[in-house]
Amino acid sequence: MELWFDEMHNKYSKLSMKVKEHLCSVESPFQKIDVLDTYEYGRVLVLDGFIMLTEKDEFVYHEMIVHTPLAVNPDIKKVLVIGAGDGGTLRELTRYKTIESIDFVEIDKMVVEISKKYLPFLNKGFDDERITAYFKDGIEFVKGKENIYDLIIIDSTDPIGPGEGLFTTEFYNNCYKALNNKGILVNQCESAFYEKDRAEFERAIKKLKNIFPITEVYQANIPTYASGNWLFGFASKNYHPIKDHKPAEWEKLKLDTKYYNSKLHKGSFYLPNYILDILGK
Amino acid sequence: MELWFDEMHNKYSKLSMKVKEHLCSVESPFQKIDVLDTYEYGRVLVLDGFIMLTEKDEFVYHEMIVHTPLAVNPDIKKVLVIGAGDGGTLRELTRYKTIESIDFVEIDKMVVEISKKYLPFLNKGFDDERITAYFKDGIEFVKGKENIYDLIIIDSTDPIGPGEGLFTTEFYNNCYKALNNKGILVNQCESAFYEKDRAEFERAIKKLKNIFPITEVYQANIPTYASGNWLFGFASKNYHPIKDHKPAEWEKLKLDTKYYNSKLHKGSFYLPNYILDILGK
Repeated sequence: MELWFDEMHNKYSKLSMKVKEHLCSVESPFQKIDVLDTYEYGRVLVLDGFIMLTEKDEFVYHEMIVHTPLAVNPDIKKVLVIGAGDGGTLRELTRYKTIESIDFVEIDKMVVEISKKYLPFLNKGFDDERITAYFKDGIEFVKGKENIYDLIIIDSTDPIGPGEGLFTTEFYNNCYKALNNKGILVNQCESAFYEKDRAEFERAIKKLKNIFPITEVYQANIPTYASGNWLFGFASKNYHPIKDHKPAEWEKLKLDTKYYNSKLHKGSFYLPNYILDILGK
Repeated sequence: MELWFDEMHNKYSKLSMKVKEHLCSVESPFQKIDVLDTYEYGRVLVLDGFIMLTEKDEFVYHEMIVHTPLAVNPDIKKVLVIGAGDGGTLRELTRYKTIESIDFVEIDKMVVEISKKYLPFLNKGFDDERITAYFKDGIEFVKGKENIYDLIIIDSTDPIGPGEGLFTTEFYNNCYKALNNKGILVNQCESAFYEKDRAEFERAIKKLKNIFPITEVYQANIPTYASGNWLFGFASKNYHPIKDHKPAEWEKLKLDTKYYNSKLHKGSFYLPNYILDILGK
């Protein structure tokens, strides 16, 4: 018998991977959580049928969502992470000794438990003393917070299911208030190749642009995400991701990375025309 | 009945697309040629079971393989194109009025015939008077040529079947000789994510490096190619793709492009660490 997992990009296109073992399948109060062991991609976390990460290429996503803002403001001390229950973003964040505190807000505690059990390559950060974990809704958590964080990372699922509220104007407004005057917000922003994803990307960026004085988009190649071309939003009160990029300071830290580097930092903001068109540039 | 076409990345991973109609299936003396009409990707050219191009994303490949060298040396006059029977590379090349002649060498005339019939969006270049078509083996064609071309584009299939000889040291050596002292060679160079592709990429680049004083690699996101991250070799006798990049001159031409632009030109040479590692950088 051959077991294959298909991720549908839409009704007409899919990525499929051969499965060694279906390690875990549970329904949390928020979503269906599956862990697969696959031949090509190693262990794979699937939420509601969508690939969240694979052992083979998660390094791209987690390095790009963390090191990009930290190389623009190496003085980031207070961080809020929303989502990220798998632990990959915490693993990268906790490599920075200069970070003093990380508020980690994940709505679904079961994602953390399952990740700890089945995805050990993501788990280096969870026990760091600087982390305070809140198992609650990020939307509620951020309400009323003012002038606190240097960095907010929104490491969410797609804007369906529990991730939906993390793509709203109200939420982004509250994030703006929760950031201090040096504040940077980074979020995963879907992709621009398939029609549905493109519409979601466009909406999210428009909302950020209406709120933040600086809003830029950067890209990375994540082979197991639909189209392989994933986009991130970089929204900020003061720091520009290219003009204020500090490669020399970042390189002094000598962090070993498999994807991110200082030249690529710059290059990741140089987008193809069909994406610039969406952004009205 | 649902018809799906699967492209196997390897035994363990595949991209699948839903097919509206199987428009054409023939065996040429060199390879099996299929054209599909698909719901998501429009028309798709398949050679020996591998996607050569889709209507939806071919613009990325063809723009990147042509405009990149032309923005480094805008004075390119004599071009040799090997492969490229589908016509997409000729379509982009013939937009340059400064190009005087294009030797177009395709081993399989049936690819051209089928492309003309089924892939009209690629066919704007075929009838340009500056093109001389040779339906023969590119490996043989280039032998003995000396000091002729400003640019050689190797727009080949993968290094199996008819494309295999286009990845050999002997062939690259003959290309070197066929180029004049300003000469640039650009080739499609597979990708670096899946093991087999990575090995082919590594071999091809090593060979080019042994022959050309300047050898660089650039990348583009092509969603329907395995991993979505496609690599190109830029090998040259004199021109460096970044140091000699001439964005102002290229922009004066006012060529409308959907992917390529001058900033992205630069960014496409800024590679992730796992690819730099392969290149020994």
